[in-house]
Amino acid sequence: MIRNKGFVCEPWAVREVGLDLDLLGQTESIFALSNGHIGWRANLDEGEPHVLLGSYLNAFYEEIPLPYAETAFGYPEAGQTIVNVTDGKVIRLLVDDEPFDLRYGKLHSHERVLDLKAGVLRRTLEWESPAHRLVRVRSTRLVSLVHRALAAVLYEVEPVDGSVDLVVQSELVANEPVGDLTGRDPRAAAASASPLSPEFAGHEGRRAILIHSTKKSSLTMAAGMDHVISGPRGSQVTCESMDDEARVTVTAHLARGRRLSLVKLVAYGWSSQRSTPALRSQIEGALATALDHGWKGLVSAQRKYLADFWERADVELNGDPEIQQAIRFALFHVLQSAARAEQRAIPAKGLTGPGYDGHTFWDTETFVLPVLAYTTPAAAADVLRWRLSIIDLARKRARDLGFKGAAFPWRTIHGEECSGYWPASTAAFHINADIADGVLRYVSATNDLEFEETVGVELLVETARLWTSVGHHERGGLFRIDGVTGPDEYSALADNNLYTNLMAQRNLVAAADAVGRHTRAAKRLKVTAAEVKAWRRAADRMFIPYDDELEVHRQASDFTKHQRWDFRRTRPDQFPLFLHFPYFDLYRKQVVKQADLVLAMHLRGDAFTPEQKARNFAYYETLTVRDSSLSSSTQSIIAAEVGHLQLAYDYLGEAALMDLNDLEHNVRDGVHMGSLAGAWLAVVAGLGGMRHHGSILGFAPRLPPGIHNLSFRLTFLERLIKVSVNRSRATYSLLRGRPISFEH
Amino acid sequence: MIRNKGFVCEPWAVREVGLDLDLLGQTESIFALSNGHIGWRANLDEGEPHVLLGSYLNAFYEEIPLPYAETAFGYPEAGQTIVNVTDGKVIRLLVDDEPFDLRYGKLHSHERVLDLKAGVLRRTLEWESPAHRLVRVRSTRLVSLVHRALAAVLYEVEPVDGSVDLVVQSELVANEPVGDLTGRDPRAAAASASPLSPEFAGHEGRRAILIHSTKKSSLTMAAGMDHVISGPRGSQVTCESMDDEARVTVTAHLARGRRLSLVKLVAYGWSSQRSTPALRSQIEGALATALDHGWKGLVSAQRKYLADFWERADVELNGDPEIQQAIRFALFHVLQSAARAEQRAIPAKGLTGPGYDGHTFWDTETFVLPVLAYTTPAAAADVLRWRLSIIDLARKRARDLGFKGAAFPWRTIHGEECSGYWPASTAAFHINADIADGVLRYVSATNDLEFEETVGVELLVETARLWTSVGHHERGGLFRIDGVTGPDEYSALADNNLYTNLMAQRNLVAAADAVGRHTRAAKRLKVTAAEVKAWRRAADRMFIPYDDELEVHRQASDFTKHQRWDFRRTRPDQFPLFLHFPYFDLYRKQVVKQADLVLAMHLRGDAFTPEQKARNFAYYETLTVRDSSLSSSTQSIIAAEVGHLQLAYDYLGEAALMDLNDLEHNVRDGVHMGSLAGAWLAVVAGLGGMRHHGSILGFAPRLPPGIHNLSFRLTFLERLIKVSVNRSRATYSLLRGRPISFEH
Repeated sequence: MIRNKGFVCEPWAVREVGLDLDLLGQTESIFALSNGHIGWRANLDEGEPHVLLGSYLNAFYEEIPLPYAETAFGYPEAGQTIVNVTDGKVIRLLVDDEPFDLRYGKLHSHERVLDLKAGVLRRTLEWESPAHRLVRVRSTRLVSLVHRALAAVLYEVEPVDGSVDLVVQSELVANEPVGDLTGRDPRAAAASASPLSPEFAGHEGRRAILIHSTKKSSLTMAAGMDHVISGPRGSQVTCESMDDEARVTVTAHLARGRRLSLVKLVAYGWSSQRSTPALRSQIEGALATALDHGWKGLVSAQRKYLADFWERADVELNGDPEIQQAIRFALFHVLQSAARAEQRAIPAKGLTGPGYDGHTFWDTETFVLPVLAYTTPAAAADVLRWRLSIIDLARKRARDLGFKGAAFPWRTIHGEECSGYWPASTAAFHINADIADGVLRYVSATNDLEFEETVGVELLVETARLWTSVGHHERGGLFRIDGVTGPDEYSALADNNLYTNLMAQRNLVAAADAVGRHTRAAKRLKVTAAEVKAWRRAADRMFIPYDDELEVHRQASDFTKHQRWDFRRTRPDQFPLFLHFPYFDLYRKQVVKQADLVLAMHLRGDAFTPEQKARNFAYYETLTVRDSSLSSSTQSIIAAEVGHLQLAYDYLGEAALMDLNDLEHNVRDGVHMGSLAGAWLAVVAGLGGMRHHGSILGFAPRLPPGIHNLSFRLTFLERLIKVSVNRSRATYSLLRGRPISFEH
Repeated sequence: MIRNKGFVCEPWAVREVGLDLDLLGQTESIFALSNGHIGWRANLDEGEPHVLLGSYLNAFYEEIPLPYAETAFGYPEAGQTIVNVTDGKVIRLLVDDEPFDLRYGKLHSHERVLDLKAGVLRRTLEWESPAHRLVRVRSTRLVSLVHRALAAVLYEVEPVDGSVDLVVQSELVANEPVGDLTGRDPRAAAASASPLSPEFAGHEGRRAILIHSTKKSSLTMAAGMDHVISGPRGSQVTCESMDDEARVTVTAHLARGRRLSLVKLVAYGWSSQRSTPALRSQIEGALATALDHGWKGLVSAQRKYLADFWERADVELNGDPEIQQAIRFALFHVLQSAARAEQRAIPAKGLTGPGYDGHTFWDTETFVLPVLAYTTPAAAADVLRWRLSIIDLARKRARDLGFKGAAFPWRTIHGEECSGYWPASTAAFHINADIADGVLRYVSATNDLEFEETVGVELLVETARLWTSVGHHERGGLFRIDGVTGPDEYSALADNNLYTNLMAQRNLVAAADAVGRHTRAAKRLKVTAAEVKAWRRAADRMFIPYDDELEVHRQASDFTKHQRWDFRRTRPDQFPLFLHFPYFDLYRKQVVKQADLVLAMHLRGDAFTPEQKARNFAYYETLTVRDSSLSSSTQSIIAAEVGHLQLAYDYLGEAALMDLNDLEHNVRDGVHMGSLAGAWLAVVAGLGGMRHHGSILGFAPRLPPGIHNLSFRLTFLERLIKVSVNRSRATYSLLRGRPISFEH
């Protein structure tokens, strides 16, 4: 956990004063920059020390074997892991021949600021070399939200107390040793030493390009750099390149008060099909664009892009500066993960670290997509377009498993199922309903009927087909879905998981409705009237597990008859439970890792009475542990709905501070995109009480003690709406678009 | 499947006429010799061709890593696999410098006979070398049931149509390439090239010894050979030894009609603790014994040992010679697996092949132990003494999993859990009740109270403790055992598996009863009155899942509500199902791999009414596929009980011919000890209707059409009883011991 002493709480920035090397791994993730296509961890400019070096390109992965002690039919044979690509961040410095390294000499000051309005990471420091030379270094780094292929660094050095000889080496480094990836934590990534094979290395002037390919997945990537250097007369610049490294070296003699300034422009590209010369041209072109815009151009475009985003998406919350900061930090990272993902998957950790091997899960549709749908709808549509792009793989997976329709992968980069533990993956079929929910949400938030016809219908139909082939009508007619795993990872292979059944129910109705609206698409997909009837009948007769005696819903059949987890005998150091107890014991007891039934009460709130919600929440709240980053936001939303405002506020804090305070002890592997998005949901759906079922948007704001007022913005049916709430009233302002009605 | 044309059906032998190289792998298992300590697959004397070379020493294993794509708490990190030890069977022959190899030249005749009365494998052949020299070779091989450390071969060669120069090389070979172990079949073994490190090699006269150790498990084994050679004057004998090979070479010039005869005496020993010199002395001593007894002595002792066994255990069955042969073949292999196992585990495949890595499972207690308990009680006691010897590992495993008492490994050689797939292993807790059932059966079949006090009580108490910590009383008081896996491997992690609950119930009562009889042992085990009360209460209130509508028991809670497997759409080439469908789909549907509820009706027949048995059998019979070798015997027993005699007979045939006809297509990996033992059970408990619940032994004989009469022998409370049944009457003869009463 981060004790937070180095972090300064500001409304529009995350500022670290001083440098605690014990927190280096965490800050590498927290300060990471990304545009959804390129991701740069916040490794120090000079490359070392580091915990995990990381430069990523979305969907650039290597295939890895998935080993099994005992294999069986249907187990995926190959996994995919995100590759640490050529590092374009590195700028090394020598001061009078002494390498600048924080571990030696004396660090007089060090400060880093993630500026949420400017979209840059700034660093300033004063360092005294072991030979007592004092220099001031300033760097500013950005990954462009406007120019998908570009990142840049402004690097400045000046001597403080006397003249020095400086050498600045700006590099591209491929196959750098990453650091200790794994340990025993199953949430970490698979290690892969030297994943890249050199294809091309070249340099000219202040520009160099390296091109590499992966060994098994056969992807090719290119990285290039160019420089604008201003230093004292007599400075020398040389450039070189070899297989795994390119270097521009600047040597200069600097008098006190003079400055050496270097703008490093970096371009990335990759392809599974294009040739090395084509990629090289692409990089040369991108670098030309970068030089054309220059540092100032890139910086000002970045600020403008963000101003536009905050105009649509900002959340103001008076009374708790820590949460205020955390919410903006959360929105910033969600934007970074999605802005330019452009029909590639959004990984669970964005492009901020190698956690979960860079895979995407259901979290994207269930947590990230709602934030995008109401703030950046085009990015939400792209999430679903990516799903459509892999639907043939999902159809094949369904057939391989013996089902109809499409079965989307539990975890993947490229589209193939990459999970090596089926009870918590293949069996978690709810992901298909979660994707359908995303379609429904996006379409009803935008009325984008063209999208519905060309993308939505196919996703809805194929997932509905899956459900009717996975479930069956029992004697008496109820529709059961047996032996599946719900969101709660401390249960598995249960009958009639309530969340799954309710989400499948909505999925089935949505598909039936959509084919009614889009007969051409239905015809193309060969939808029959009998099929549609079967979907409606299954939805109609869906099994809803309920305990009459306890008057609560059951998470799954018989769940409430299981033994309750013995929390009294569980020591604090035995959390998270899955690192200290076998799944065998967790699965068979009443203990919940992440909101499951409670999540159903959020997303399918229309299926519960207020009394049921209150009783269910009271029952499941006591069974839910804080072992998942995906729990607290949902707990917060329903706690608010059933009137536990203080509890809602506590859970909001947990969701919002998950990464800034490293509550799960693994932020070094990347920030938790689902939890960050969840923080926004906890504010907007929790405190703001926003609900969106079918075509109806409604709000039921309520503020916990301590929050004086709250305002948030969202886009709905092309209107920009601002909701402002204080302790006595709620105000709805239409900032853009025609009048619209909704429920209060 | 073996089309059987080469096998001749005889009452006391399995005879193969001719040699079908396509069946070589199967016959290597079927003709394997073992005494429970040493196992020799029936590889040809000359070593090649072979499918799988195999020489085994019980419990001599190597540690192997167990890999996981996604690991979790409690997964075993290391597996164990049986090692192919130094091969002492090899005798190579050169005829006029031409190596004798069946694949070259011309094989005029070839016959092998497994003699079930003599306990030897005989081979006779006539071979014409590519250079047209015709020789006759006869070999007889035995693994001594009397002398645990000894095996021997008599090898004779004579020229048929002219004089020849012969070279006979008798060898010890370590680290020989075994053959293709695996393929994609998960039931096969883990490969391990060159598992043995040389520790000692030496020779003197006609004797040689090799000593090797394993690399990770740190076990040391020694093999030695000595020879008695008789050949024509002028024969030369030399001996040599090196790291992985020792060789005695005999060169002779043989005139037509003369014979070269070589007796090869082989001794084996291994230890985890004793030194190389100690092992060497042990082998020298064993070889001295062997020379003292000589070939004739070994052969006659073997015949006497078997005569004694058949006197106690023979089954006669008139009307079906194929089944008659198969039953004796089955008893012979069961005896071979257990005779000298002496407190080591009996592997699922005995020592006849590397299948299942040489692991032991619950089959031993549930199928093999009953056969031993009524025919060779001392061997049954040793099975349980081995369990007691690993009880500290089982206690540790229970604690690691969060439970009390002892949790025995699902599969192991040395005692540690070696399963890499927990839903079908760790979760299959019934193995603990199966061990308790073995204790109960052995004690009530022998009244061996000293065994009960020193071995039985501890096993009963620690398994009872496990059950009260694994299960719990639900609201209303019923005792549930949730999330476990029963015998049926097409279901997993179900609540209240009926078999498990009924077997645990008996386990709990047996423990409570036993501590009443053995207060000293109870005190030593710190059993409290409260504990005993809890055991009885849990047993009393045990949850028995029953479907009131269908009037059948449920295999587990809600089992009968699941979708029925669609057998109409399952093609014949899709069996066994687990090689063509994912566990995900198998687990969630009504389809049964091996008798589960039906097995409960056998072992806990006292818990069902006859009407329930009939209805249950009718219901589950239609759901049960023939994908496991452990199913048909139990199906046969209950089919007979509920009156389906023809079906019982068909299932008996399946159980009895499992290996001789290779019905599961994997007998090349070793014979199926559980199924072989099951064949005896199908005859004695099925047709003979023998039941033994508590202290009561009963019979209810019934013969299917075609079987004229049946007799079998068994030992009960030190009496030897012969049961003879014909179509009109049953006769019970007391062959040894005082009068006794039982039920008819």
